[in-house]
Amino acid sequence: MAQVSIGDSEFDRETAVVPREPGVYDVTLSPGWTVMRVVNGGYLLAVVGRALGDALPHPDPIAVSAHYLSPSVPGPAVIRTETVRSGRTLSTGQASVFQPAEDGGEVERIRVLASYGDLDALPDDTRTTAKPPAIPPRERCLDAAEGPVPPGDFSLMDRLDLRMDPDTVGWAVGEPSGRGSMRAWFDLADGRAADPLSLLLTVDALPPAAFDLGLTGWTPTVELTAHVRCRPAPGPLRVALATRNLAGGFLEEDAEVWDSADRLVAQSRQLARAPRG
Amino acid sequence: MAQVSIGDSEFDRETAVVPREPGVYDVTLSPGWTVMRVVNGGYLLAVVGRALGDALPHPDPIAVSAHYLSPSVPGPAVIRTETVRSGRTLSTGQASVFQPAEDGGEVERIRVLASYGDLDALPDDTRTTAKPPAIPPRERCLDAAEGPVPPGDFSLMDRLDLRMDPDTVGWAVGEPSGRGSMRAWFDLADGRAADPLSLLLTVDALPPAAFDLGLTGWTPTVELTAHVRCRPAPGPLRVALATRNLAGGFLEEDAEVWDSADRLVAQSRQLARAPRG
Repeated sequence: MAQVSIGDSEFDRETAVVPREPGVYDVTLSPGWTVMRVVNGGYLLAVVGRALGDALPHPDPIAVSAHYLSPSVPGPAVIRTETVRSGRTLSTGQASVFQPAEDGGEVERIRVLASYGDLDALPDDTRTTAKPPAIPPRERCLDAAEGPVPPGDFSLMDRLDLRMDPDTVGWAVGEPSGRGSMRAWFDLADGRAADPLSLLLTVDALPPAAFDLGLTGWTPTVELTAHVRCRPAPGPLRVALATRNLAGGFLEEDAEVWDSADRLVAQSRQLARAPRG
Repeated sequence: MAQVSIGDSEFDRETAVVPREPGVYDVTLSPGWTVMRVVNGGYLLAVVGRALGDALPHPDPIAVSAHYLSPSVPGPAVIRTETVRSGRTLSTGQASVFQPAEDGGEVERIRVLASYGDLDALPDDTRTTAKPPAIPPRERCLDAAEGPVPPGDFSLMDRLDLRMDPDTVGWAVGEPSGRGSMRAWFDLADGRAADPLSLLLTVDALPPAAFDLGLTGWTPTVELTAHVRCRPAPGPLRVALATRNLAGGFLEEDAEVWDSADRLVAQSRQLARAPRG
């Protein structure tokens, strides 16, 4: 795999934010990170995360809560941030992404509350009972890019090097397991290493866990909160998604991201609308 | 147990909000819902939830994300809300709680983003693989109010009728299980039935799961997101807390709340600072 460095990759170029005035950033949402022409929610969260990392006194996202208001489309957007609180070890900020509306005004796409800190300044104590997901070795997993190509736009998949656990891809051939799981090895396609910002993409970049329930329609996120727990070590990530409760037309989806050093580097939970399929 | 009705209970009286102007509410945070003189985060979330339920076009909290900024104290506070988006099935709002500061200004205690809907209008479809927690029958659990009284203020415990699973109270006698679990039957002390608003209290009202790791100090919440999944049936609730990853001075805590009809009525996850004890 070609290796590119952090800062000089398509992820970095296409999540770049340009300061317009203090706390306000211009960005062009790329058509390369879409599914069905809608901008992926994880990519959008990474863009917002980059703006907040510039605006706030601490560099790293620690807890990021996003409420998705309307589908984002490729093209220009503006991010308006507010510093809510600046503390010694954590600062809290808010951000919204706006895009031009048909009536000449603006429409808000996502609103985010986030607490930022400095991952490198945290103590080394770890007491983890969580276990890494049981994913077969990478070479025995299925390259998502080599599967059957469904109709429609899956540009996002060209940006990723996803190797899917064979146990969680039955849905692609009409045989979902019914367990509501999705597991994969995750890399960016150009080999760019993971960092706290790219983890915001990683938690929402796999096919939805609902697919493994046999529900393969559109699964829009209502709310997603991600916790970044430590800076990922170099090497591929393992991602495990699970949903345990579909009810009332909504389902939750939990994501865990593990690094090559067997550390739980990010957790997320989202509430999404259940597909009708 | 004395039975009081929803609307005429200490929970309802002490979470009451008084409209000052559209979207702005006055409230008196009660000294009855504190631990170590700090207002409980779940009670505070219920107060904010009541204000948002009045301000937004939909009545019920569905997804509520809170970032805790500074400890709230008993006394007057003002809640300022903003309607972010009004949709057909969901509306999204924002709210902040402010209290008077020593310098004569205001200090922000908590900022919340929330999506509201109408739980009674949701479809009945349910596909749940989650199982209710294995808690012994209520009569074989331990009345939290009858345990050894630790020094300090635990007023919150007088508001609740908590029956703790004996397997998760070893910490009280210096013998934590080390699993990071906490389970209990939950009622309000005056018998007021559960509703979507009181679930916002329920998810953050038990002793922290960290106690079961032997860490019994202060565990302040950084961020908490709650999902209310359906209106709880009458009868006692079962609450299960778990933490799986303590690292870098933080830990996550997941809560599940189950009703008497064996439905998962609420889920929450918080990121908290790990106690030093």
